[in-house]
Amino acid sequence: MTRTRFVLGVDLGGTKISVGAMKADGSGQHAMHSLPTLAADGADSVVDRICAMIETTITQTMRETGAARDDFLGVGIGSPGPLDREQGLVITTPNLGWTDFPLRDRVSNISGLRATLDNDANCATLGEWWIGAARGAQNVVGITIGTGIGGGLILNGKLYHGASDAAGEIGHTTIDSTGRRCKCGNYGCLEAYASGPAIADRAREALVGVNDSMMITMADGDLANITAQIVYDASKKGDELAREVVRETARFIGTGVANLLNIFNPNVVVLAGGVAQAGEDLFGPVRAEVRRRAFKPNVEACRIVPGELGGTAGVVGAVATYIAQYPVYPAGA
Amino acid sequence: MTRTRFVLGVDLGGTKISVGAMKADGSGQHAMHSLPTLAADGADSVVDRICAMIETTITQTMRETGAARDDFLGVGIGSPGPLDREQGLVITTPNLGWTDFPLRDRVSNISGLRATLDNDANCATLGEWWIGAARGAQNVVGITIGTGIGGGLILNGKLYHGASDAAGEIGHTTIDSTGRRCKCGNYGCLEAYASGPAIADRAREALVGVNDSMMITMADGDLANITAQIVYDASKKGDELAREVVRETARFIGTGVANLLNIFNPNVVVLAGGVAQAGEDLFGPVRAEVRRRAFKPNVEACRIVPGELGGTAGVVGAVATYIAQYPVYPAGA
Repeated sequence: MTRTRFVLGVDLGGTKISVGAMKADGSGQHAMHSLPTLAADGADSVVDRICAMIETTITQTMRETGAARDDFLGVGIGSPGPLDREQGLVITTPNLGWTDFPLRDRVSNISGLRATLDNDANCATLGEWWIGAARGAQNVVGITIGTGIGGGLILNGKLYHGASDAAGEIGHTTIDSTGRRCKCGNYGCLEAYASGPAIADRAREALVGVNDSMMITMADGDLANITAQIVYDASKKGDELAREVVRETARFIGTGVANLLNIFNPNVVVLAGGVAQAGEDLFGPVRAEVRRRAFKPNVEACRIVPGELGGTAGVVGAVATYIAQYPVYPAGA
Repeated sequence: MTRTRFVLGVDLGGTKISVGAMKADGSGQHAMHSLPTLAADGADSVVDRICAMIETTITQTMRETGAARDDFLGVGIGSPGPLDREQGLVITTPNLGWTDFPLRDRVSNISGLRATLDNDANCATLGEWWIGAARGAQNVVGITIGTGIGGGLILNGKLYHGASDAAGEIGHTTIDSTGRRCKCGNYGCLEAYASGPAIADRAREALVGVNDSMMITMADGDLANITAQIVYDASKKGDELAREVVRETARFIGTGVANLLNIFNPNVVVLAGGVAQAGEDLFGPVRAEVRRRAFKPNVEACRIVPGELGGTAGVVGAVATYIAQYPVYPAGA
């Protein structure tokens, strides 16, 4: 009988940690669960929490599947960057407050498992390539739109990391050189227009002097409560102002995606994160803007699709990056 | 005695064809010469001219080096795109008026040499990587600024072509989504601001109502004669208005280059074409704009340098793309 092997995935975020296990062939997900990061408790405490979650995941997966402890090959970790992959360091994360923290080896030492570390946006993209919306495609651009806009690149079937693991900062490409100030210090970045908070900001601006939009009710009358999700939901219900904010968002995203088509000539662009929930209200106009802006052969070569993995994209992707680094041969004993 | 082998390179442009031979180890250039393309004579005539130039190059190189005819391994061809590399077709070229023309096999059949075909901007970038300003770098972005703005990408030590050989259209990335109309139909492309003709256009706009700029004298009093070269030359001589046009050009180029740094995290960006002649007047402000706009780790990882190959970049690059496809092993017999 062929043995089933498992790989664990850890998705470390500023507000929550998600952990789970997958069969190494991508066919099953086990014991997926999340806990608050509680970054304020310090890095040691976060590492302890991660390792406790790994232990829980192993125990529960063994119970569910009858696996033995040594069927767990290792753990892939996805973390906000910038990172030093070779050394396994988190160089700096504004959200966690860490500097040059040896996350990979700390988790490996405590858990007793071999570990890998990669950028969260890279993980999300590789997950979609492995078992999601970009399955098996040769060249993929992944864009994760949430609090920020992250990017991952799969070129010739492999994650591309660049000279110092800092490639893929798609959110920080300029689409309007004299435009909105971005948190990164630059002007006119895609992220300054199309991240979740930027979408909410633009909705608030559009609502000045307006009192008949659904968005106001959905925000309990307080514009401070407006979120990108409220904008998407109101748009789906037909709110005209919300629809205009979504169309405008689509034009910004479409401009950024058109640039990526002309640069990379990818087979697939995956838009993941909250934006994947916006549906055709957003994807239709994004595709139209891309057709207007990018070269025809580049448009014809490329599908632009929502991510399929939803909330588990980070964990699945962390597992995928582990396997990319330490291939699992189907043999088994 | 180890035999010296040679590879020929053909650089096909809208106005001229350049051909030459190189030692396969990159150490020598032979019989480099150019003739007008005379595209109006038709594709057959252009192919005949290319093959006659190949014959001249072989004969002259044999005379110069004592090589035998079968020391010439093949010919790399660089052409404007879009191309189908696998089939060896020029899909379409506005400047030559060709459609689905089997350039590679036509040249191969007449010359009796094995041939390869690649995009001219890819060739120029690979040439700089082989024996020029980006020698041996792992990840390189090449930008050739002339009548248009072309781009080539070397990722993990190899030319990157994308899903349908259409990657690298760096000139057609948007830096101002509501900006200048570009010839490609899009708005705000880098090429609409920083190509040779766009630089000349912006100089002409700046000269409206001005009569004390050196540029006017250098253009023999006729603004229609202004070229990017005149702008660079006047700037070097201290003309204030020309200096401002160059600084503005640097800001546009810097914005485009910053995007590429954030996306690719390259080791080297090579700026080639006429712009390489502009010197520190341009490169200083380009680097400053990139520092302002790109992430620090991405800036620190990357050199931004002028191309070193000048007028022979296209031929050298065509030879390099041939060797990339048909490696020449140093052995020899």
